[in-house]
Amino acid sequence: MAQVKAGLTWQFKDDRAKATTNEMRYDWLADRWVIMAPQRTARPDDFLRKPSEIHAASDCPFCSGKEMETPDAVASYCLDGSTDWSVRVVPNKFPAVNACGPGIEFAPKSLSQPNGRIDLYQRREPHGAHEVIIECPQHLSSLSQLGQKEVKLVFQAYRDRLDHWLSEHRAEYAVLFKNVGEDAGATLAHSHSQLIATDHLPSKVQRSVERMRMFEEQENTCLYLRMLEDELQQGLRIVEETPDFVAFCPFASRIPFLQTIVPRKHQARFEHLNDFGLEQLSWLTHRLIRRLENLHPDSSYNFVIHTAPASIGDASFYHWRIELFPRLTKLAGFEWGSDCFINPITPEDAALSIRNAGV
Amino acid sequence: MAQVKAGLTWQFKDDRAKATTNEMRYDWLADRWVIMAPQRTARPDDFLRKPSEIHAASDCPFCSGKEMETPDAVASYCLDGSTDWSVRVVPNKFPAVNACGPGIEFAPKSLSQPNGRIDLYQRREPHGAHEVIIECPQHLSSLSQLGQKEVKLVFQAYRDRLDHWLSEHRAEYAVLFKNVGEDAGATLAHSHSQLIATDHLPSKVQRSVERMRMFEEQENTCLYLRMLEDELQQGLRIVEETPDFVAFCPFASRIPFLQTIVPRKHQARFEHLNDFGLEQLSWLTHRLIRRLENLHPDSSYNFVIHTAPASIGDASFYHWRIELFPRLTKLAGFEWGSDCFINPITPEDAALSIRNAGV
Repeated sequence: MAQVKAGLTWQFKDDRAKATTNEMRYDWLADRWVIMAPQRTARPDDFLRKPSEIHAASDCPFCSGKEMETPDAVASYCLDGSTDWSVRVVPNKFPAVNACGPGIEFAPKSLSQPNGRIDLYQRREPHGAHEVIIECPQHLSSLSQLGQKEVKLVFQAYRDRLDHWLSEHRAEYAVLFKNVGEDAGATLAHSHSQLIATDHLPSKVQRSVERMRMFEEQENTCLYLRMLEDELQQGLRIVEETPDFVAFCPFASRIPFLQTIVPRKHQARFEHLNDFGLEQLSWLTHRLIRRLENLHPDSSYNFVIHTAPASIGDASFYHWRIELFPRLTKLAGFEWGSDCFINPITPEDAALSIRNAGV
Repeated sequence: MAQVKAGLTWQFKDDRAKATTNEMRYDWLADRWVIMAPQRTARPDDFLRKPSEIHAASDCPFCSGKEMETPDAVASYCLDGSTDWSVRVVPNKFPAVNACGPGIEFAPKSLSQPNGRIDLYQRREPHGAHEVIIECPQHLSSLSQLGQKEVKLVFQAYRDRLDHWLSEHRAEYAVLFKNVGEDAGATLAHSHSQLIATDHLPSKVQRSVERMRMFEEQENTCLYLRMLEDELQQGLRIVEETPDFVAFCPFASRIPFLQTIVPRKHQARFEHLNDFGLEQLSWLTHRLIRRLENLHPDSSYNFVIHTAPASIGDASFYHWRIELFPRLTKLAGFEWGSDCFINPITPEDAALSIRNAGV
């Protein structure tokens, strides 16, 4: 029995011996090394984490009947035969970017450096959109508590909103993300996701696009297609498969139990998913979250949908992906200082545990 | 009254209006933009964080009398006139790197890619040292609880151990870091810091070294000397000064209340600090931690000492620095996905609050 930080206890179902030596692994996409240090799960831990107290549902601005407490919906979705909303998309009341409404163009970048001297105090306005996808009218806290039809509507909203901002509004960058639980950065408990679309492409994202382009130039195939081929052949880190998708724990994962979900066939844009793909993906994601929750009850989790920046179009080198990860460990000083992560659970062990967890 | 994630409440001492529009700021060193979004401090928060329960001191392997529970000390320090240890340095019992003891050379890097095809599964052994600096014999939990003489001994240990691994053992990279409290990634409550020395220079650190070199090539001065000149002239983000050091909240800070401490005169290596510098620096750091703790009681914090990688020697472009930061916010899905951080507290407001906090 070993303990992962945050006071969450877990155990290998088959109780087999775990890897015991430290190893560094190279994340080719991110161009950085990660340390796998399985022995560190045996560290003593002084801190016994107590669950946060959660406000009563009666205060929740996302529940049905409280629609007046949020800005007007920009989209809403009903289940077949119903007139009540099942999924509701609203602008974030506390946006991180300055609203760029319908008809308003994203501003061009300006990074001028006056009179040749390097300017250490450059500022710009963050233009864009920050939306909240409220995933159910009732006060549920995780996507796993919804039924399959409801989850499919949620994914439909993801697809539509990404398409809206990337295709219609030409936002350079859009990311869809979900924070569940306090440790995952959520402030509201009611199940929801968020979309941020901006004219700014973060430098890490820019670098990962360049790496994918470089890979294809050198290897004549897309990075994720190669990785998928290797992963399916090795079979060590696969968690689950559907006809169109594969979920696996990546070789150089920075944090425990992180899973990547990718389409088997090349596709640059998540928002180009067809209905059959959407159905499979929502089914698969729902199952993977349930597995994580069975393995680590009450843990926080995030997921992030990475889709191609607008300017690279349908590029053959970019492959969209979802990253899903529980928040069991804390970033410590070493990670902050060096950006080199220490992962106490190898992805092979993580995949085995997730496969063995019930759905 | 505004709330920062993690349930910690804070208030501007002067109750003046806070900045209310979002703004992006460019971090020249890291080559990335940060979003300042002060309005987000007004978000509602469903989660009321309860403090962790902490194990009894009687279990603590770092307390005086429990020396048998840790590996043998590699160094220890006594206060003048005492024969009992005040600071004790031991190898980490659960190291993240594989031990590279005295007389053992660090292995050279090998990053070969067999037969020209890109290898997505590169591994290597993490060579190096992972040490724990136990900062007091009694069961105290923060450096701020020690007296000034004790803190100076702690900093002396930092200097000696960095010098040991970087100068004597030619570790390419060494970082000294401190995790206090569960949210900062600590597993033991007893006040301690850690040192990791390796033959691997993390890619983020490599990039920051290149940026500093580029700055000096273009501007004929060191990045931090220029920044210091600008900061002292603007005066908006300065927290505290001593004859040899300045502490300030950097312009494009990713997280609330982060402070950088730098020497006023150019110095590449922390471990080249003289005794007078060490005395001032330990005094200053002690005060800054007390200010943070007054402002955010019971919050976790980290600090990290960034000193020059061994191979760049005494380079005129590299300036050592300490980063000190409380852990009030959680990394959410957006930050994980984009590496673009949203900071709800501007560094100007942070500096003002820290200056106004008692010592």
